[in-house]
Amino acid sequence: MARYVFGADVGGTTVKIGLLTETGEKVDFWEIPTRTEDHGSNIIPDIAASIREKMKEKNIEDTQVVGAGIGVPGAVNIDGLCYQAVNLGWEKVNVVNELHSALKLPVKAGNDANVAALGEAWKGGGQGYPNMLLVTLGTGVGGGIIIEGKILTGAKGSGGEIGHVHLVDDEPETCGCGKHGCFEMYGSATGAVRIAKRVLAASTEDSVLRGKDFECRDIFDAAKAGDKLAVEAANQYGYYLGKGIAAVASVINPEIIVLGGGVSKAGEMLFDLLMPSFKKYVFPGCADAKFALAKLGNDAGVYGAAKMLLY
Amino acid sequence: MARYVFGADVGGTTVKIGLLTETGEKVDFWEIPTRTEDHGSNIIPDIAASIREKMKEKNIEDTQVVGAGIGVPGAVNIDGLCYQAVNLGWEKVNVVNELHSALKLPVKAGNDANVAALGEAWKGGGQGYPNMLLVTLGTGVGGGIIIEGKILTGAKGSGGEIGHVHLVDDEPETCGCGKHGCFEMYGSATGAVRIAKRVLAASTEDSVLRGKDFECRDIFDAAKAGDKLAVEAANQYGYYLGKGIAAVASVINPEIIVLGGGVSKAGEMLFDLLMPSFKKYVFPGCADAKFALAKLGNDAGVYGAAKMLLY
Repeated sequence: MARYVFGADVGGTTVKIGLLTETGEKVDFWEIPTRTEDHGSNIIPDIAASIREKMKEKNIEDTQVVGAGIGVPGAVNIDGLCYQAVNLGWEKVNVVNELHSALKLPVKAGNDANVAALGEAWKGGGQGYPNMLLVTLGTGVGGGIIIEGKILTGAKGSGGEIGHVHLVDDEPETCGCGKHGCFEMYGSATGAVRIAKRVLAASTEDSVLRGKDFECRDIFDAAKAGDKLAVEAANQYGYYLGKGIAAVASVINPEIIVLGGGVSKAGEMLFDLLMPSFKKYVFPGCADAKFALAKLGNDAGVYGAAKMLLY
Repeated sequence: MARYVFGADVGGTTVKIGLLTETGEKVDFWEIPTRTEDHGSNIIPDIAASIREKMKEKNIEDTQVVGAGIGVPGAVNIDGLCYQAVNLGWEKVNVVNELHSALKLPVKAGNDANVAALGEAWKGGGQGYPNMLLVTLGTGVGGGIIIEGKILTGAKGSGGEIGHVHLVDDEPETCGCGKHGCFEMYGSATGAVRIAKRVLAASTEDSVLRGKDFECRDIFDAAKAGDKLAVEAANQYGYYLGKGIAAVASVINPEIIVLGGGVSKAGEMLFDLLMPSFKKYVFPGCADAKFALAKLGNDAGVYGAAKMLLY
């Protein structure tokens, strides 16, 4: 008899839910709205109800279900306690206990970035590598660490939260975390724009970026087209990206480093940009890590949430 | 019937071996010489013979033994392959296979620093904390990372080899690894001496350290006695130690950070010295890690080697 597993990736607007086979074959993926009113108290019951409805629709018995995993936008400890999830209106919610009470099936929970890393390790860019680092390059820099096929959760669920590793001394601007010089201030999409603005300000040369309210993608497009200052900005971005990844890789010695998030749409040029500083700063014993791009996009969290049940 | 486990910690001069109960009670600890001649080919057979002899002496049957763990001074991957152990004369030795062939009991192997970390987590300064970082402050800076009670080995056994995380830009001197500005260049005993020499060179003030061929312990002794330049050197040492530990802690979110190695004999003053920069540089989600001193000294490796069999 076929066995199934559910994965749910909770975002601020929608919850992505997936029904998969035990081997990770996609059976059905769908979305429900994230109801953040009343301190987000409906979110978990809604997920449970949606899973139960799907089981009924597909004639799946409880005994055929391994369980349900859930990724949420906040730190989650090993016991399933989410300390805070601002986007959901949550303060200290034990996600495992609440979903288990509502669903009456085995449940596991994790931080969304960590869960996405597990998804990429299972079925995405890190497939086949039990020791993987996912670096998510979006508005911020997030990440997830997979060790021997499992999420590195850490004491309070902040394992793999690599965006705030200190990278640059004497940074005058302040990071969202209140510190100065964090990896995320340079390695994120916002960071790329910060770097490009500084490059433009330090030069009088012309550039297609000058005078525009440009975004990260514009920098890489202009660099690909040969715009000199955009190339300089892209190189500086690569320098910081390589330096930040080197710091993390030197600690955990991953087999593969997977780049995801919006910036990773720049593609393989990122590897060329980051490699010189990665090689310069990484511990030699960790220098032969492979690099790859994430493959699952927005589905990574659903795959990873499901995979937690299959450890 | 009582169950036992053996642990062996291989050094360049002696192998420390321990017979413990499953719950970690010390039954017998002893040493044998490390015979490094003939490319160290006798080391593993010698350990097997010594364990067999001890079993005979104590009337312990094979069925009473969980197995034997071994820590070696080199990177060891998850399959027990040691890539190189210069101090033992080894090139690519599968420690698990060779010890198992000689001993005919279950065997596990790991890097000595990682294994010592596991020992401290089991019975030492990190007891009771499944997520621990050991920072070993000796001639170099070593370390080991314990996640949910197990060693973080990494792709090729370099997990937790934290001494070469990049810490300082524009360092003119070269680290043993060939890079510049590694954590170990400042956080080790050698690093403390480097820092103190620079402090002395930058000042004309008198100091008990001046004109002497001083060691690390002399710096902390002089600082405790109020010597102004020694205090300055100790503060700078603490700054780098806190900054380096913050980088690692921000990646893995440990519950407790245990300081071991020769420098840790300076005691709790190290916590005061490192705390300001640790707090300045660590990701806020990881800032409430506890600090402790290692407790097992040279026995840590024996305890940890044994503990690998009890995962």
